Amino acid sequence: MAGVAKPFSALLLCSLLLLCTSTAMIHGKKMRLASSHRPCKRLVFYFHDIIYNGKNAKNATSAIVGAPAWGNRTILAGQSHFGDLVVFDDPVTLDNNLHSTPVGRAQGFYFYDRKDVFTAWLGFSFVFNSTEHRGSINFAGADPLMNKTRDISVIGGTGDFFMARGIATLMTDAFEGEVYFRLRVDIKLYECWEKA
Amino acid sequence: MAGVAKPFSALLLCSLLLLCTSTAMIHGKKMRLASSHRPCKRLVFYFHDIIYNGKNAKNATSAIVGAPAWGNRTILAGQSHFGDLVVFDDPVTLDNNLHSTPVGRAQGFYFYDRKDVFTAWLGFSFVFNSTEHRGSINFAGADPLMNKTRDISVIGGTGDFFMARGIATLMTDAFEGEVYFRLRVDIKLYECWEKA
Amino acid sequence: MAGVAKPFSALLLCSLLLLCTSTAMIHGKKMRLASSHRPCKRLVFYFHDIIYNGKNAKNATSAIVGAPAWGNRTILAGQSHFGDLVVFDDPVTLDNNLHSTPVGRAQGFYFYDRKDVFTAWLGFSFVFNSTEHRGSINFAGADPLMNKTRDISVIGGTGDFFMARGIATLMTDAFEGEVYFRLRVDIKLYECWEKA
Repeated sequence: MAGVAKPFSALLLCSLLLLCTSTAMIHGKKMRLASSHRPCKRLVFYFHDIIYNGKNAKNATSAIVGAPAWGNRTILAGQSHFGDLVVFDDPVTLDNNLHSTPVGRAQGFYFYDRKDVFTAWLGFSFVFNSTEHRGSINFAGADPLMNKTRDISVIGGTGDFFMARGIATLMTDAFEGEVYFRLRVDIKLYECWEKA
Repeated sequence: MAGVAKPFSALLLCSLLLLCTSTAMIHGKKMRLASSHRPCKRLVFYFHDIIYNGKNAKNATSAIVGAPAWGNRTILAGQSHFGDLVVFDDPVTLDNNLHSTPVGRAQGFYFYDRKDVFTAWLGFSFVFNSTEHRGSINFAGADPLMNKTRDISVIGGTGDFFMARGIATLMTDAFEGEVYFRLRVDIKLYECWEKA
Repeated sequence: MAGVAKPFSALLLCSLLLLCTSTAMIHGKKMRLASSHRPCKRLVFYFHDIIYNGKNAKNATSAIVGAPAWGNRTILAGQSHFGDLVVFDDPVTLDNNLHSTPVGRAQGFYFYDRKDVFTAWLGFSFVFNSTEHRGSINFAGADPLMNKTRDISVIGGTGDFFMARGIATLMTDAFEGEVYFRLRVDIKLYECWEKA
């Protein structure tokens, strides 16, 4: 009898070890926590923002909707655009070409929040509806945009990105005057759940 | 001695299995992760938004506070209301009747962020202060409101909803012209913590 | 052989118990979930908001950038400032002295969202770049500011606060007319990850 019990017990121990250490499987493989150095999912996208300036109604993908008392909604204000609030619906592409076929939309808002340096704060979603990706990733955080790279938070997701959490590293890939900029977004998810 | 050790070891194995697979109990039953198909908490509410239009100051529960250069703060702008930013304090009810006793308030903002289709982005809280529920649930995400249902993220909670995470499925239950709409919010929490 | 196997098996069981109950160690000590009564990290800061009122351009750290149709961007509106949207870049200090050396910046937005009571909604980050702390903590939630204390959510973090989640308890430590207020922020993190 002991001869039968031993291997069985060893098997149990092994499966327990697997259960406890490599992934947190709760009620059937729901959640996967990545190691801090290895995300459970990684995605890189670009998005393109063309801000309305009174002359580009047709091409503009964003517009100033709030401004301080000393500003207006057609031209970005002085003092590092402090207080300018912008709503956007920007194309998301796989490469850095504005004219590539969009794979999703970046929708949300940003505002400039410092008088002496260009600094922004972002709240937005990547919205996907293709064969590749379906669902959304939600972001929020401070964007000190004069830094080469800066991190914001992935605060949640839906669909393919159900319950996602992580970090997105932003990099200004290009900017042209005060009308166009392109951000590279390197998304690193450290909490990945299976789709509900 | 082996006869004593065996059942004890089996007992340990059983409790380990329970600990590891059914719930993640850390430092005394703190966190409960639901299976992806079965939320650990589910709640359905309705909220009612009456937007200020220059004539309904008494009844309005929300108001336009930002608009693009081509818009104003009394009438929703053209181009699918792109850029209109609305702050709201809406009653939350258990059923779809605007006149039911509110069980909480929906407080936050939304803005329209697409020119060619009605699409919004929401950041808000459900705030409860009753015998039934005390605390808040915080939401953020894209709301492509022409879809029958759409998911946003539950990004956190306080009080009874301490540390909550999950998904909320929105459904436009009614809308009347550009003044009133009612959303059904089906909240599915997949991370539930015990109250601090 | 049995004499060798027993202690080894006991050792394994002990380490398993440690793994499963005290902390969720996934792929090498990545995540630490605190008990609900004991945060894994606790930090207290103050931040100071001086709102632009048309006369204090030099000292102001925040400005109204959105307002309802009946308001303007220089003076907070009637009806409990309903609809006034403010962007801020406030100094963060360790004590309640406005003139203490800042240890970081509080950057984000708030808006007043109720007509009959002073109530706000906040989305902001604490941004640190010192030897003490490097990185950001992101917050969102309802702030019923007439309550002595109120909780908002920590929805994420970067750098030293990589993947943080928790609760921040706000307390109005001082306010002077409608120009200055000081908030005490008691941050309690219940999910702490090691830095990526």
